[in-house]
Amino acid sequence: MKKDLLGIADLTPDEIYLVLDTTEAMREIGERPIKKVPTLRGKTVVNLFYEPSTRTRTSFEIAEKRLSADTLNVAVASSSVLKGETLADTARNIEAMAPDMIVLRHASSGACHLLSRICRSRIINAGDGMHEHPTQALLDAFTIREHKRHLAGLKVTIVGDLLHSRVLRSNVLLLTKLGAEVWVSAPSTLVPPGIDRLGVHVSTSVDDAVVGADVIMMLRIQQERMHGAFVPSLREYFNVFGMTAERVRRAKPDVIIMHPGPMNRGVEIASEVADGPYSVILEQVANGVAVRMAVLYLLAGDAGAD
Amino acid sequence: MKKDLLGIADLTPDEIYLVLDTTEAMREIGERPIKKVPTLRGKTVVNLFYEPSTRTRTSFEIAEKRLSADTLNVAVASSSVLKGETLADTARNIEAMAPDMIVLRHASSGACHLLSRICRSRIINAGDGMHEHPTQALLDAFTIREHKRHLAGLKVTIVGDLLHSRVLRSNVLLLTKLGAEVWVSAPSTLVPPGIDRLGVHVSTSVDDAVVGADVIMMLRIQQERMHGAFVPSLREYFNVFGMTAERVRRAKPDVIIMHPGPMNRGVEIASEVADGPYSVILEQVANGVAVRMAVLYLLAGDAGAD
Amino acid sequence: MKKDLLGIADLTPDEIYLVLDTTEAMREIGERPIKKVPTLRGKTVVNLFYEPSTRTRTSFEIAEKRLSADTLNVAVASSSVLKGETLADTARNIEAMAPDMIVLRHASSGACHLLSRICRSRIINAGDGMHEHPTQALLDAFTIREHKRHLAGLKVTIVGDLLHSRVLRSNVLLLTKLGAEVWVSAPSTLVPPGIDRLGVHVSTSVDDAVVGADVIMMLRIQQERMHGAFVPSLREYFNVFGMTAERVRRAKPDVIIMHPGPMNRGVEIASEVADGPYSVILEQVANGVAVRMAVLYLLAGDAGAD
Repeated sequence: MKKDLLGIADLTPDEIYLVLDTTEAMREIGERPIKKVPTLRGKTVVNLFYEPSTRTRTSFEIAEKRLSADTLNVAVASSSVLKGETLADTARNIEAMAPDMIVLRHASSGACHLLSRICRSRIINAGDGMHEHPTQALLDAFTIREHKRHLAGLKVTIVGDLLHSRVLRSNVLLLTKLGAEVWVSAPSTLVPPGIDRLGVHVSTSVDDAVVGADVIMMLRIQQERMHGAFVPSLREYFNVFGMTAERVRRAKPDVIIMHPGPMNRGVEIASEVADGPYSVILEQVANGVAVRMAVLYLLAGDAGAD
Repeated sequence: MKKDLLGIADLTPDEIYLVLDTTEAMREIGERPIKKVPTLRGKTVVNLFYEPSTRTRTSFEIAEKRLSADTLNVAVASSSVLKGETLADTARNIEAMAPDMIVLRHASSGACHLLSRICRSRIINAGDGMHEHPTQALLDAFTIREHKRHLAGLKVTIVGDLLHSRVLRSNVLLLTKLGAEVWVSAPSTLVPPGIDRLGVHVSTSVDDAVVGADVIMMLRIQQERMHGAFVPSLREYFNVFGMTAERVRRAKPDVIIMHPGPMNRGVEIASEVADGPYSVILEQVANGVAVRMAVLYLLAGDAGAD
Repeated sequence: MKKDLLGIADLTPDEIYLVLDTTEAMREIGERPIKKVPTLRGKTVVNLFYEPSTRTRTSFEIAEKRLSADTLNVAVASSSVLKGETLADTARNIEAMAPDMIVLRHASSGACHLLSRICRSRIINAGDGMHEHPTQALLDAFTIREHKRHLAGLKVTIVGDLLHSRVLRSNVLLLTKLGAEVWVSAPSTLVPPGIDRLGVHVSTSVDDAVVGADVIMMLRIQQERMHGAFVPSLREYFNVFGMTAERVRRAKPDVIIMHPGPMNRGVEIASEVADGPYSVILEQVANGVAVRMAVLYLLAGDAGAD
């Protein structure tokens, strides 16, 4: 592993497999009555969140505590960014307090790379702008592998807001690295120009895109995009792109349905699908803790070897 | 004990006595130089607060840490509820991360029961809407028992905003279960219709209600109720319902004065009473930590026995 | 050491040296692979912050965790102060939960002394109004001593918003106690009347004030002071008082440049100075954790001896 986890773009397939294999061991810890190992005792992890994110922060914090790290939450409200110092100065300051790792969530795409350049602490990207969200893609890959044994050759169809999604980007990078065939589908207003250069098949017909899919991954429609230029109305969006039981029937019989959350029921996904037999959405959440434990463990291990 | 602590309504008198007796042992831990036992080591408790509450959250968090649990604070601002997922989806997500217990504070009365139905984690109600606040009633009962040895046969007079108070509801349920005689007093605008069906005596004259009382329990007048239809003015409220030294003299000579906090001095209670010799208000706060330790301990113990 | 650390005003030179010497030992802990000692295991520290302060709170929290204390963060938003109880009642409530220490940041100058009078817990002032910020002055003194071996006889020039600065006050008290010669410089609108009674030399010419300085300490210009009566414009302020490489050349050749942060680059300090060879700004941050560990350790030790 490299010093930091900035994105899937930097990982080799072998490094991805190492994370997935380590996740298996970590998940087992989460099934014990005492879900705690002393691996990171005496290590300090700062969760530096410039965007609020209950679920990602909680998942990292549980992972850190299961490994016995000392955790600090630093939530920087956008208001204080305005009157405050630069991200670089904040990072240098936190760095000066000698934490072992910094988990960063930031609205700007380059934020994690900036920290990586100026900090000796390990940096873990917990979502940076429209760029990457690597632990989400890793937990998605782990969940798919659990159900399908392998990723190579699978047809994975991703539906939703492709334009504003770091989850999409990290998933496409990972899935194509491991040999999956990725289809994406969205209204044309939500398809980023040049997305086909990522090696994906693009279709504005979700009915076509899901045919024969092994995996359907829904992306959240952000409420702030829901009115105005991108989507004519929520009802219209659901009619044309919402994942319904009828659409799911066009996929493989053993298809799995994924969603990174939080879900807009009745907008991008029907409740009967979200809660239905093919849904692995809550498994994704559970696996998220184990994947983050694996990443923390692997980076800390390298830290010790320096 | 049942799986969850949702309210006093679900508890038998024996279960209430079990909590109170366990609280004695827990209080002793709080008096040691090292106030920490390994009872909940490796257990994860999520404090999921949809309403801000410095004191209840702090009390639970100290209780959790004294028992060596790993604690996570998840504060969900009302703003993010609006654009976010449902409580059920949030709860399922937190549940998927496999915490052992969830302490929930929520503005809706049914919130804890909802979580109880969908979560395997133990649920502890830290206040839900106008419904219940069971650990408050338990700490109140513990404090009364400390001073009076028993609860049966005591006259307990509760004064203040009866209409909007979950503290009232939990206390009335508990006190009547254990055989106390409960009197309530408030302006008629703040008396919920049908309150007499709870087995309490109602009087709009606080001077009558406190005669011969063993315990006087004041309820907070929420600032947001203080103007408009409910209360003509703060001064008027204090004149008619405020607990003054003069009114206290109508009670038993060894009466104790209680308040769940935070207090509005000069509104529902005179400072000389709040700080006077009969006041046990700060004992209530201290006992709150011990009661919460007892509840956490008893629920976790049952968890182990599953 | 006294029971509490309220301000530099209360400390004797010997007590200051004790903190500085203890800081040496604490800093060594921060350089180990496992930066954690069990010194404060089972002790509870409440970080009670009435003003947001990412850096001071983070520094204290890391210090507390390195000493194995249980830490609780209680952030009281100014909004909830308005509708809530008094600081005294909040403090009595927290005190009733029996924490061992309370670290208080508050906008009012008397806040820490109030808590000191009503609490048995140790009180540590993390900044109170315009009054004092003693751990900042101690970390500054530690940093100066690191570079200059001693403080007596040094010329220390402090430049910036003297009028609104608790950092200034604590530093002047400490530096003059230890025999340094302190010069201060600011626009006349930002010089508090009677500052010369503190035993400092005042100059409205920063060019004069820095001549021959061993230490230059810049103070932050608060954004809210930057327009209106105090400062005509940011550009103007930088031209007349900003610390530039040219101005630094008027000081001693081995001058060190300090700033308590967060910095306004291009307002009170040029980036080339902030990041230049004489800058010890990030050392100050690093030393802050060690100084706070020393203070926590010394106060807790006294606690044990009671």
